[in-house]
Amino acid sequence: MIEVYAFATPNSVKVPIALEEMGLAYDLKPVNVRNNEQQQASFLALNPNGKVPVLVDREADDAPLVVTESAAILVYLAEKTGQLLPKDYPARAPVFEQLFFHASGLSPALGNAGFFKRYAAEPQPIAEARFSGEAERLLTLLDGRLATQPFVAGDNFTIADIVHFGWLWRRAFAEVTLDDKPNLSRWYDEIATRPAVVRAIARVEALIPKS
Amino acid sequence: MIEVYAFATPNSVKVPIALEEMGLAYDLKPVNVRNNEQQQASFLALNPNGKVPVLVDREADDAPLVVTESAAILVYLAEKTGQLLPKDYPARAPVFEQLFFHASGLSPALGNAGFFKRYAAEPQPIAEARFSGEAERLLTLLDGRLATQPFVAGDNFTIADIVHFGWLWRRAFAEVTLDDKPNLSRWYDEIATRPAVVRAIARVEALIPKS
Repeated sequence: MIEVYAFATPNSVKVPIALEEMGLAYDLKPVNVRNNEQQQASFLALNPNGKVPVLVDREADDAPLVVTESAAILVYLAEKTGQLLPKDYPARAPVFEQLFFHASGLSPALGNAGFFKRYAAEPQPIAEARFSGEAERLLTLLDGRLATQPFVAGDNFTIADIVHFGWLWRRAFAEVTLDDKPNLSRWYDEIATRPAVVRAIARVEALIPKS
Repeated sequence: MIEVYAFATPNSVKVPIALEEMGLAYDLKPVNVRNNEQQQASFLALNPNGKVPVLVDREADDAPLVVTESAAILVYLAEKTGQLLPKDYPARAPVFEQLFFHASGLSPALGNAGFFKRYAAEPQPIAEARFSGEAERLLTLLDGRLATQPFVAGDNFTIADIVHFGWLWRRAFAEVTLDDKPNLSRWYDEIATRPAVVRAIARVEALIPKS
């Protein structure tokens, strides 16, 4: 069985989406980050970095395989199943480009934009402008890409679409909209209605305790 | 021939290091980011994101292949040559973990720590503390990892070592030191003296115009 330690977060949701798309069964193990459970010793033993998601593949060849970092988990699952990541170049290159463009660019821009808008103890206007401006610049780039191709890495749905979707599903945190991004909006709506994506979102939202 | 558009920057240096380690010949094309040359139309045609490095492989099978994002370039070169990235799991997993840990964690922490210490028009103390603190936390994690294994992804030198080294080579920008990180210091000194790394650093430093 595959276990996924996760919560209803932008990075967590990527893993159930990939698993649902690939048709793999999995157990979702809740790690309530609102209660800081990702800092408990039992979780830090899995991921010393204290971040969800973590995947534990108990079907791996030798011992159980623990993988951290959402995009590394997606690469692992894609290579395990032969799905959602082209095996050959040139088609393979833009998938990795987008995975790293997301990890090093869009993801920290959205995360930091949200932090400085919401949580900073005192206003940090230069920081807020820096990250909100960078998020807008990167979303505009992505919108331009999607003007000429259906998916972020080309003609086919890949794990690169999943990483961007995960954060954009939680874009309200960063107070960004897709209203003036017609191509990105079209792409987002298409991904959000895929049956596997609907199932994955329902499962991670069910991890939030009823208040 | 392989062309690399680059400058003496933390992300650029990773690509010549990989190429030197793999024994591939390449042309270095200077893009002087101190003069904002990465915003010129001819460069934006290669990478609309306006970032170095960019690799153009004119030896690729069909048409020339353009790859952006330093870590995506390293994955491409590793898969092209069969070097510095294990082909099979479980050994392959920690390489991707470290590539994404670097891209989403250490790289933005160091870049933003340096920005807020050096370039912000007014002090942003919360932002400065946030990124300097995160850089320290992540370097401490990496130091802990290197207490029990020679390289960041395990027993062998991989492209994951190259991505971390690239930024740590420029750690003075973020005003961090390795002085209290004995394992990371040992690792850094070993990488810095590899002949391929020495050659790559000399080539990117030669891109800086004599003043």
